Amino acid sequence: MITIDPRLSINQATIKHADLATALRVTSEAGVQAIGLWREPVHEVGLSVAASMLNGSGLRFTTHCRSGFFTMPEGKERRASIDDNRVAIEEAATLAAAGAAGSTAILVLVSGGLPEGSRDLVGARELVRDAIGELAPHAAAAGVTLAIEPLHPMFASDRCVVSTLAQALDIAADFDSAVVGAAVDTFHIFWDPDVLASIARAGNEGRIATYQVCDWKTPLPSNVLLSRHYPGDGVIDFGSLTRAVVDAGYDRDIEVEIFNEEIWATDSAVAVDRTARAFASVVSPHLAAATSSS
Amino acid sequence: MITIDPRLSINQATIKHADLATALRVTSEAGVQAIGLWREPVHEVGLSVAASMLNGSGLRFTTHCRSGFFTMPEGKERRASIDDNRVAIEEAATLAAAGAAGSTAILVLVSGGLPEGSRDLVGARELVRDAIGELAPHAAAAGVTLAIEPLHPMFASDRCVVSTLAQALDIAADFDSAVVGAAVDTFHIFWDPDVLASIARAGNEGRIATYQVCDWKTPLPSNVLLSRHYPGDGVIDFGSLTRAVVDAGYDRDIEVEIFNEEIWATDSAVAVDRTARAFASVVSPHLAAATSSS
Repeated sequence: MITIDPRLSINQATIKHADLATALRVTSEAGVQAIGLWREPVHEVGLSVAASMLNGSGLRFTTHCRSGFFTMPEGKERRASIDDNRVAIEEAATLAAAGAAGSTAILVLVSGGLPEGSRDLVGARELVRDAIGELAPHAAAAGVTLAIEPLHPMFASDRCVVSTLAQALDIAADFDSAVVGAAVDTFHIFWDPDVLASIARAGNEGRIATYQVCDWKTPLPSNVLLSRHYPGDGVIDFGSLTRAVVDAGYDRDIEVEIFNEEIWATDSAVAVDRTARAFASVVSPHLAAATSSS
Repeated sequence: MITIDPRLSINQATIKHADLATALRVTSEAGVQAIGLWREPVHEVGLSVAASMLNGSGLRFTTHCRSGFFTMPEGKERRASIDDNRVAIEEAATLAAAGAAGSTAILVLVSGGLPEGSRDLVGARELVRDAIGELAPHAAAAGVTLAIEPLHPMFASDRCVVSTLAQALDIAADFDSAVVGAAVDTFHIFWDPDVLASIARAGNEGRIATYQVCDWKTPLPSNVLLSRHYPGDGVIDFGSLTRAVVDAGYDRDIEVEIFNEEIWATDSAVAVDRTARAFASVVSPHLAAATSSS
């Protein structure tokens, strides 16, 4: 028997093979109070059914994952991406409204990598800024916060040209902080020599849209996308990062988001239980410490 | 028949399976004028024999690779590392003296990862600074420049806690620029949103000890150490990076250093030829452009 941290949220990617009904059920049955959803399982049942299921679960909704992928040059493909991102914004708003009190309407954005055949990272980053400029009015109207997620630099060329929290904040700076923020994910930014300063800056600028935790361990698996681990199983110092996030004023739910073939292969209830234990062990103590000290 | 760029240097790692005699021969026979050596093949023949062979080759010596690995806490293992680094400094000085005119006495330092069982990246970085502080007087006395090499952040935990050029420069700043500089390797830093500014800063501070080029391509192989490619085979923009390095005042030899199982499996003369062609195709044009413009 463990005490479930009231701020723990299960990101649905951690139990990837569970459908929406199962994900909601195992999360709720574990005594976890919040969940972050992914678009694909929501689409499987349809948005309004998903919203109704979420409402019935009594869980808070923390983030909608994931949209973005808008580094292509102007043209049909880029228009399709912008349109799809607008749909995702509406989904996030609908789900946040359906979740329990304290739900947050946050859409996580992964920018996308270099356009096909391009070597222009600088230009691709400007395409990200332009896309967010197009989407911001829609997000504002829907009451949704767009969370720019910097991804680890090993994904810079093929998945996300935004590689550091500072860079995400530089892009976000052009917009209202209620509309554009950043996702702070330990896995992607723990290595950054400026990480603590960037987290403090994100707090000062009101830009921490979500805090997500999972661990880093080497050797990396052959698909480096799937190299995420339960907090505590790797080398990330959740103490310093979590205290920095709390000291920066972040007081909402904290997601555990893990992509890992082995974890996906376990029963989803077991994975949620292990996640809750890992969180209680290496994250919760620093939430308490940070709120009781200085 | 291609024109060999006079500034091209073959880093011996590119032809890893060639012994020293073969490496010197194929490099020289290809019409390449310079070579960077690795400690292991030098040790195989012994330093004085290696120096004599290098002298006989007529090649310039560009860097000695590689030393460092000094993030362990104080104790026997750390003392052994410092001692070994002092030996490497002497080797670099000896080889540079044996190389043709224009040789440079540069020792490349890879810092090492987190100490066993540690999650303290900040502390590990201070251990790097301390080690360089111990080594700097020896390097100064030997006329050797220590080149701190930032490695891609995917190596931050297990190989090199120095992940960005700015971070390398921050450490180097405590020391004389003739004694401590940084290695600028495209593979490791191309993703960095601050890369061009950091290269300019490195130039202003007189810290570009060596410029090394190779390419980045995904998907990464299962051993991510071996994910380096011939310049032009991946997504790195050698134009902007090379012009930045030249504009920063770097006017010495440029090494191609590639770790890649497939390239290692080819005949070393073929690999040198392909390297020279790749360099001529994607690096040389920017050397010319940068010197003739602005």
